[in-house]
Amino acid sequence: MRFSATVSVRLRGGIADPEGATIERALSALGIDAVHNVRAGRSFLFEVEASSLEEATSIAEDLAGRLLANPVMEDHDVKVEAK
Amino acid sequence: MRFSATVSVRLRGGIADPEGATIERALSALGIDAVHNVRAGRSFLFEVEASSLEEATSIAEDLAGRLLANPVMEDHDVKVEAK
Repeated sequence: MRFSATVSVRLRGGIADPEGATIERALSALGIDAVHNVRAGRSFLFEVEASSLEEATSIAEDLAGRLLANPVMEDHDVKVEAK
Repeated sequence: MRFSATVSVRLRGGIADPEGATIERALSALGIDAVHNVRAGRSFLFEVEASSLEEATSIAEDLAGRLLANPVMEDHDVKVEAK
């Protein structure tokens, strides 16, 4: 079976995020003042071939922790669903 | 009320994604062969101050379409939930 996986990676809470801060400063120029605490990160979408949702989640977690995120500086979360 | 919003931005389907292709090539070196069609993108997490979920979603959609994504080359999706 094919599953669709999304991995979001972003800097851990205590680490300065200049991209997020820049976006936040740009908001007032657009007239948007209801948005706060912007954090920028990366996202990855891929397909996993596995026999169950558990197996697909475990493959996606493994990939996220070993290749997509730097565990020293970054948090990641993984969402897997059947296609 | 405060809502938590996540915006994922990625290149449209027909547009070459060299970062995703590079990740896909790196997978075999890690012994992961069940993963295909990797697409790389960006994600943004922020808080929205609004009186309802509908208003928060509309603010997040506006921000995504005007500042975070380039509608010519990129697709985006928005998820908003109460904190």
